[in-house]
Amino acid sequence: MDFEHRFRVPEKSFHLAGHDPADVAGLTKADARVRRAADARRLADLQERLYAEGRQALVVVLQGLDASGKDGTVKHVVGAMNPAGLAVSPFKAPSPIERAHDFLWREQVALPPRGHIGVFNRSHYEEVVTVRVHPELLSGEAIDPSRARDPRFWERRFEDIAAWERHLTRDGTRVVKFFLHISKAEQRRRFLARAERPDKQWKFSVHDVREHRFWHEYQPAYEAALRATSTADAPWYVIPADHKWFERTVVGAILVSHLEAMDPRCPTPSEEEHAAMLAAVAELRAED
Amino acid sequence: MDFEHRFRVPEKSFHLAGHDPADVAGLTKADARVRRAADARRLADLQERLYAEGRQALVVVLQGLDASGKDGTVKHVVGAMNPAGLAVSPFKAPSPIERAHDFLWREQVALPPRGHIGVFNRSHYEEVVTVRVHPELLSGEAIDPSRARDPRFWERRFEDIAAWERHLTRDGTRVVKFFLHISKAEQRRRFLARAERPDKQWKFSVHDVREHRFWHEYQPAYEAALRATSTADAPWYVIPADHKWFERTVVGAILVSHLEAMDPRCPTPSEEEHAAMLAAVAELRAED
Repeated sequence: MDFEHRFRVPEKSFHLAGHDPADVAGLTKADARVRRAADARRLADLQERLYAEGRQALVVVLQGLDASGKDGTVKHVVGAMNPAGLAVSPFKAPSPIERAHDFLWREQVALPPRGHIGVFNRSHYEEVVTVRVHPELLSGEAIDPSRARDPRFWERRFEDIAAWERHLTRDGTRVVKFFLHISKAEQRRRFLARAERPDKQWKFSVHDVREHRFWHEYQPAYEAALRATSTADAPWYVIPADHKWFERTVVGAILVSHLEAMDPRCPTPSEEEHAAMLAAVAELRAED
Repeated sequence: MDFEHRFRVPEKSFHLAGHDPADVAGLTKADARVRRAADARRLADLQERLYAEGRQALVVVLQGLDASGKDGTVKHVVGAMNPAGLAVSPFKAPSPIERAHDFLWREQVALPPRGHIGVFNRSHYEEVVTVRVHPELLSGEAIDPSRARDPRFWERRFEDIAAWERHLTRDGTRVVKFFLHISKAEQRRRFLARAERPDKQWKFSVHDVREHRFWHEYQPAYEAALRATSTADAPWYVIPADHKWFERTVVGAILVSHLEAMDPRCPTPSEEEHAAMLAAVAELRAED
């Protein structure tokens, strides 16, 4: 199953309506489990080579409505990798210091160094999705919310995002973006499940339920953002997320395909370095 | 086996000579494997509660000579936890910006927020161990290396470290410190093993072999640092590290004991919060 091709958002023309959040692409749960285990091992191996190589970096953007599975993907998919080469950055409501900077600043500060993988749990895309659904948030950024009525305002943000991601790609940092697509009914079911389990109640948020009312407003906002910013360099994927097992399988498989395309290689020593190593080895051997 | 008690550095009186790097405390490899698997699950569970509670943080300091197992401990012990609540910070030779600040600055910048665990792969203790063995490094900190001849110079650094760690503990961040104690013979064996395996040669460092010559100078430097800075608040542990399986078992077990002592609890909602949750649940139920 070529998930990479099947769920990739094409450049320019994209409609979210054709995407079923409950899709499982004919995969069975048992086959998915086998694939996840194999991909977890490949991810760990590819990450180690990326780290050893130290020349490229990867940013993984996780977006999606509340309860769409972002946290579970971090725990179960990203968790297969070595924490030494990894940083997970959650981007919640921006702090006063963050709001006092340009809208890409906090993500730039959180970028992974070469050899590392940075996972953004939410990201700069909140600035063209959540803020578009709730334009009153712009006043916190010292911007007049009336400007949200001008579509060019959002087009310019898309353009700035695409230009930044293009720059990152050119300079060695690949950007891969996942939209975890959950239906309104499944989101509601998950909220109710959280409320029913005492050990999960701390994840239940009255604010999330308020946002649930805006489920229909979020769809065109995501559609516009994905259409404008899915590029050959920094593609978006729409991941059916009503079934957690399927969503995690697909995200893992697509991460493997991107890391394989990056083709990280352990560095080979130069002639001088090799000679220095042999001399050091001889010194150690003579220690007896 | 009470590892926490057995390997803890007592306050004030401490001699490294009594500690055998090859000690396995009578444990078999098979029993250790069972214990590691159980402790990995407990670590993951305790970390989730720490995160949910959001009131306390934990700093784990890993120190030890090259090849003593710090990276492997990050991968295999720390790797059992959810990367969302975790940040691993490696502290290598300080950059010009870092050297331009006080010697505790870069660790302070890397501290975990409440609810999180920060793992320091090397730390501010390099400033009282490696720098003490190589006092010429002080010139990079704009300090006259001749001051290293004054024992009070190091005592003051110990005092500043202990005062900072005491402050962290008081303000909700526990500090737990591991010295991975490896013998000179085992260090040599591991370096040679790296040189022999093509896929591990990138970890072989001529610089490490140069430091290997200073193995005997590092011992009193570590002894002095541990003796001066192992406190009830921020204890040091000397972990026998000649056997990787034993070292990882002990570090995992001691982390569990500290997280259990921190006793993180999922927050219980206030009466108002509970009422708001019930109202939100009723709204969701009415959606049908």
